[in-house]
Amino acid sequence: MKLLDLYAKLKRDISYIEKELERSIDVEHPMLREASLHLLKAGGKRIRPVFVLLGAKFGIYDLERVKHVAVPLELIHMASLVHDDVIDDASTRRGQLTVRSKWDNRIAMYTGDYIFAKALNIVTKLPNPQIHQILSKTLVEMSIGEMEQIRFFFHTEQTVRDYLLRIRRKTALLIAISCQLGGLAAEAGENFCRQLYAFGYNVGMAFQVRDDLLDLCGTEKEIGKPPGSDIKQGNITIPVIFALQDEALRPKLLEEIVRIQATDGQTDISAFLQMIRTSDGIRCAEELASKYIDKAIRALDKLPDIQAKKDLISVAHFVGNRSY
Amino acid sequence: MKLLDLYAKLKRDISYIEKELERSIDVEHPMLREASLHLLKAGGKRIRPVFVLLGAKFGIYDLERVKHVAVPLELIHMASLVHDDVIDDASTRRGQLTVRSKWDNRIAMYTGDYIFAKALNIVTKLPNPQIHQILSKTLVEMSIGEMEQIRFFFHTEQTVRDYLLRIRRKTALLIAISCQLGGLAAEAGENFCRQLYAFGYNVGMAFQVRDDLLDLCGTEKEIGKPPGSDIKQGNITIPVIFALQDEALRPKLLEEIVRIQATDGQTDISAFLQMIRTSDGIRCAEELASKYIDKAIRALDKLPDIQAKKDLISVAHFVGNRSY
Repeated sequence: MKLLDLYAKLKRDISYIEKELERSIDVEHPMLREASLHLLKAGGKRIRPVFVLLGAKFGIYDLERVKHVAVPLELIHMASLVHDDVIDDASTRRGQLTVRSKWDNRIAMYTGDYIFAKALNIVTKLPNPQIHQILSKTLVEMSIGEMEQIRFFFHTEQTVRDYLLRIRRKTALLIAISCQLGGLAAEAGENFCRQLYAFGYNVGMAFQVRDDLLDLCGTEKEIGKPPGSDIKQGNITIPVIFALQDEALRPKLLEEIVRIQATDGQTDISAFLQMIRTSDGIRCAEELASKYIDKAIRALDKLPDIQAKKDLISVAHFVGNRSY
Repeated sequence: MKLLDLYAKLKRDISYIEKELERSIDVEHPMLREASLHLLKAGGKRIRPVFVLLGAKFGIYDLERVKHVAVPLELIHMASLVHDDVIDDASTRRGQLTVRSKWDNRIAMYTGDYIFAKALNIVTKLPNPQIHQILSKTLVEMSIGEMEQIRFFFHTEQTVRDYLLRIRRKTALLIAISCQLGGLAAEAGENFCRQLYAFGYNVGMAFQVRDDLLDLCGTEKEIGKPPGSDIKQGNITIPVIFALQDEALRPKLLEEIVRIQATDGQTDISAFLQMIRTSDGIRCAEELASKYIDKAIRALDKLPDIQAKKDLISVAHFVGNRSY
């Protein structure tokens, strides 16, 4: 099954969430509204709301309740992207100008703060304190992850574990709690929610590994920005860490990375990309992603065999093979 | 009574909150801890925790519960300061280097995000959903206020109302809910909490008006930064708005403001300061602050005559006359 088919089935509910997203940022303040809408309209796969909806299918599915989790989680993702673009000095995302390049870093910071606060405000509509505890704990982890990114820029001695810890905070936790909070908002049992969390966590890890692979192997058209953006800003991802473990390749690769750092990323990186693409780092990273997808699917074992379970498995396979 | 005497009475409880503040940001991440601690150690009057504690005296005072509001509100204030320093390009605050100048804007942004998330995480220890709703609504307003500041930079046509709306969001709301949530956390009745809110709101408005007066009339020693920092960054405050209403003064004042804007604040502003200090704008602003203090004290009328009420009145008088 294609992801689009799945989306087709959930289409009505996703359209509704999309409208609620727009409604949520419809603030009186002109610049905030414009910047937030710009961000929303830049698109995205809305994968977090999809996970919330599918998670909720394991409980008493009520869109009117579940939207109070689906909308905030997408908003939090959006807010973290605007702030990310500030560290990354990113000028485009998904082929569109970023808020910081269309306006400036300060506007990006405050747009992020606003969307973030809005997200929290919506989730308080649900009285279950567990939801707020889980969410706020994740936000703390995410903000530590943002800082970690800076610390590890151009850090060629970092381990696989450093990388995994970083993408856990940066990506996996938010996807994990999307599944879990979908379940919790629908009052699915504790056990179900725990399994949904484990599923989301592993899918999230695979998602980020594939994302990092794409940045190195994709074309500009596929990824909406020039390949190699990660290394240009100093972000050493898992295929590179694996490639650095190859004693024969390591010295040349280090030399290239030092050169890229010295130019602040303002240099031709085709030699670097060529080295990585032909290295074993790609295969190792692909294997790692597959391992996470397998773990994700196994995490669903004890959940009832309803349609949503099949859909989650489809999304997992899709993430495992994604090439956009 | 001096504010210090009041603090002396609450000393043990404030010291405890101070320790909890330190504990709350004791994260493993070295840079985050350093930046957060730097911020915490830079001091501040801890006026928000004081208001929380005094508000709680109107209910069942239990420091172990109330700390889950007192600590977050001070953290939120701190987080908003770090982000504020980014818009203000501020290099010092309270005579100390700001996070953005000691490190950089990105570190300041993420330190703010982290402290913010931590604050939310602590407040989720209290199950009362009303507390979360009030807090998150205030955060939305505050973030709109941050953006408004940018919009009104060097905007000489702004009205008194524009200014009041801005300081409401920037300062007064957080002080208002400090009093209110102190009450709510201690399960004081709805009526009490409403009156505490009204008190805090009016004190907060007066607090900001006095702060803006200080920036224009204080000495560098008194305010921990050179006087006139506001106008240098384009922040037109109430004494200036009032002074601009004087037809005789207006043309010269406008000329000065245009000149300051043209140099991006990098100019001698002593002529501007002299004009304002000898204008009627100072007296009008002082009267406005007094009016808010009177309203604040009247808001306490129906609260029981316990010691905390006398203390709140003392704080209000202190704020009304503050010269540091």
